[in-house]
Amino acid sequence: MNDENGAARANDDHRSLRADVVLLAHACHARDWAPATAGNFSVRRGDHIAITASGKDKGALDESGVVLLDLRGAMAEPSHERASAETALHLALYRRDPSIGAVAHTHSLAGVVLSRRALRDAGAAARGAHVLLEDYELLKAFHGVHSHAHALRVPVLANTQELDVLAGTLDAVLASTTHTPLVPAFLVGGHGAYTWGADLPTTLRHVEALETLLSYALEEARLCGAREAP
Amino acid sequence: MNDENGAARANDDHRSLRADVVLLAHACHARDWAPATAGNFSVRRGDHIAITASGKDKGALDESGVVLLDLRGAMAEPSHERASAETALHLALYRRDPSIGAVAHTHSLAGVVLSRRALRDAGAAARGAHVLLEDYELLKAFHGVHSHAHALRVPVLANTQELDVLAGTLDAVLASTTHTPLVPAFLVGGHGAYTWGADLPTTLRHVEALETLLSYALEEARLCGAREAP
Amino acid sequence: MNDENGAARANDDHRSLRADVVLLAHACHARDWAPATAGNFSVRRGDHIAITASGKDKGALDESGVVLLDLRGAMAEPSHERASAETALHLALYRRDPSIGAVAHTHSLAGVVLSRRALRDAGAAARGAHVLLEDYELLKAFHGVHSHAHALRVPVLANTQELDVLAGTLDAVLASTTHTPLVPAFLVGGHGAYTWGADLPTTLRHVEALETLLSYALEEARLCGAREAP
Amino acid sequence: MNDENGAARANDDHRSLRADVVLLAHACHARDWAPATAGNFSVRRGDHIAITASGKDKGALDESGVVLLDLRGAMAEPSHERASAETALHLALYRRDPSIGAVAHTHSLAGVVLSRRALRDAGAAARGAHVLLEDYELLKAFHGVHSHAHALRVPVLANTQELDVLAGTLDAVLASTTHTPLVPAFLVGGHGAYTWGADLPTTLRHVEALETLLSYALEEARLCGAREAP
Repeated sequence: MNDENGAARANDDHRSLRADVVLLAHACHARDWAPATAGNFSVRRGDHIAITASGKDKGALDESGVVLLDLRGAMAEPSHERASAETALHLALYRRDPSIGAVAHTHSLAGVVLSRRALRDAGAAARGAHVLLEDYELLKAFHGVHSHAHALRVPVLANTQELDVLAGTLDAVLASTTHTPLVPAFLVGGHGAYTWGADLPTTLRHVEALETLLSYALEEARLCGAREAP
Repeated sequence: MNDENGAARANDDHRSLRADVVLLAHACHARDWAPATAGNFSVRRGDHIAITASGKDKGALDESGVVLLDLRGAMAEPSHERASAETALHLALYRRDPSIGAVAHTHSLAGVVLSRRALRDAGAAARGAHVLLEDYELLKAFHGVHSHAHALRVPVLANTQELDVLAGTLDAVLASTTHTPLVPAFLVGGHGAYTWGADLPTTLRHVEALETLLSYALEEARLCGAREAP
Repeated sequence: MNDENGAARANDDHRSLRADVVLLAHACHARDWAPATAGNFSVRRGDHIAITASGKDKGALDESGVVLLDLRGAMAEPSHERASAETALHLALYRRDPSIGAVAHTHSLAGVVLSRRALRDAGAAARGAHVLLEDYELLKAFHGVHSHAHALRVPVLANTQELDVLAGTLDAVLASTTHTPLVPAFLVGGHGAYTWGADLPTTLRHVEALETLLSYALEEARLCGAREAP
Repeated sequence: MNDENGAARANDDHRSLRADVVLLAHACHARDWAPATAGNFSVRRGDHIAITASGKDKGALDESGVVLLDLRGAMAEPSHERASAETALHLALYRRDPSIGAVAHTHSLAGVVLSRRALRDAGAAARGAHVLLEDYELLKAFHGVHSHAHALRVPVLANTQELDVLAGTLDAVLASTTHTPLVPAFLVGGHGAYTWGADLPTTLRHVEALETLLSYALEEARLCGAREAP
């Protein structure tokens, strides 16, 4: 292979990575999970990730609004755009688990409201805060879950603007999780959800499953009187 | 009729059966009743049924994602796809009632939340668990119902991953139903709804009616204080 | 004017009447106010009304699904279709008020749930049952309302399958209403809303206003504890 | 520059101003924030503002439904249309803050219901009525907000049909606000929200952020028992 062919191939790969990010962002924006330029989305192949640039309207996103990084977060291709401020969390996920192929960070109503509620219930230390999703058939949409009779605890982290601190907390939470299969998601309080999967279709399915399950749990919290859902 | 013509006609019939399944799946996906590859849909003609393959995104479904079976569940045409895991329930319905022409299995929020609530109310044995839909004009959308002054009890079955067990329970529930007209629907707890009708348009109407009626009942359960709906 | 020209003109008028009915039905179906073939829609010009035929899916409606009647309800043009079963209510409105140019009958969740609640609150006789809409700016969308400081009482009638009885009750309710401006709407318990206006654009505005106002009132009923909306 | 060129350029500017108003109105109508001809939208450039005409269906709006005014509210180009009745509030905003480039007035369910609730809580004088939005990541979508740890008090004004009185109250509220950054929004009780920004994209982002944040706050108000949100 001569250098010119290699460069052309790398170029094609990068374009396809960017297209996947656009697809993931559009799918989530269409469901109202990325309002007002919020949310960020990435896809990884080998040592590179493509991630949405900072401040983009996810409904109008095109490939020029996606930047290419290596796994330490350095720009892999020149761009006028800055990578999303939350890139550190995406990188922490990709570094911890090499099988992750895509990450979606969404801002849905259910994720925001249930994460605040979980933190309030967990008290000041916020240790062990989680949203429990249990006995729903749709849990089977998560890779490795084969029965509704499954208790999925989605961890909830307290929000902070110090992304490196948040990435460290996340790393600790993931390291301490002994459940199998691992839940491919966590929430940040009053902020939203992160979800991931081995590739783009799996990640899309996981996002849809998580958001739908959260909407079930929220609806059960709404039903009056005693709390009917955890 | 020579063999070649017969084969061509069978081929056309199968294509049309598959197209009907795609239409039913798309209509339900567009309403958010089949998220994250959940839900399955079938249409019957004579001794054949066409049913969605396992694990398909129902919004992106095309005819290659539909498989053709006979009424015992054997493949009637070669395919690389597996039939939906819940094929046993579709077959149980078609075998019990030869007038059924299509079956839709949806995962709506109202169906999931109300079915869990009904099972909790019914207690451990789950005998007689049901969602009561009564005094709604929209009940008349069900074949054979001619007045709003009608109490439709939608049976709720406890969920299990043993589909043959579930099919057996369903058969017993349907056999014991003495109401006339029969309600063309049942729920599975924390899972979703099955609805059917004599043909595709009737089944589409029944699905829309059931899901809308469940959303009424859920809204009334939401209204605070004493429960205002059964 | 010779006969042929007159017939051609009548033909054009009828086609335009039918097109208006299709437009009104599509607009309401798109908002989920006419599910599962429910709802019916009519437009009047002079001595003729065009009205949706019985049992049509309002999203797929075309002009062949609209029938032409005179004001006594007799077919004004031959058709294979039957006029909607609720034609009697449309005719009662057109006969009582010659200024009415279009009538929309919708089945929205808010209309169904609030009408049941109003009847329950009114007790067995259902006399005076109504939904009160008050102090909303959007009330000004109704013809003749010039301030939010307006108490609009939407009458609620008990449902019955005897349409002539319902038409008679409606006539009595409208006759006894002394408010000015008259509210261009009423509800039928567990059934839905009727709304009307002088022409098609006014009727579309009135339907949107009524359904939006009902969604406000329902949301306020949802908010917990003491009822916050009438 | 000769006069003819100047006139052509002014003409182009006006057309582009009108197109921006149409875009803003369509975006809000598509989200159900401008039902039944409600809502109004304006964009400013230099000494001119373009604003939606009175009584227009915002989904069907085109440039002929937008009028051009100077900052005192006088017509800057002849038109058969009247400017929106609420033009006085738009002008009050543009005059107070020369950095404002666009204003959106929306009628969302969350804005209507929460504003009524805030006024009721504030008591008869309605002094200091507000909706508190606090600790949501999405607050960062507002220009100048850099952390979720921010308490944004959205002022709520009592509704009145005397627009000049309302404009005066607004002016006083804005003048008395000492928070930095200023919240680019206020609510009118039972009526809706006004939001603004330096240009069209910022205003669109602010509207989406405000409406989404209000939907979070409403959802938390819905959750039963004690109020969980202010």
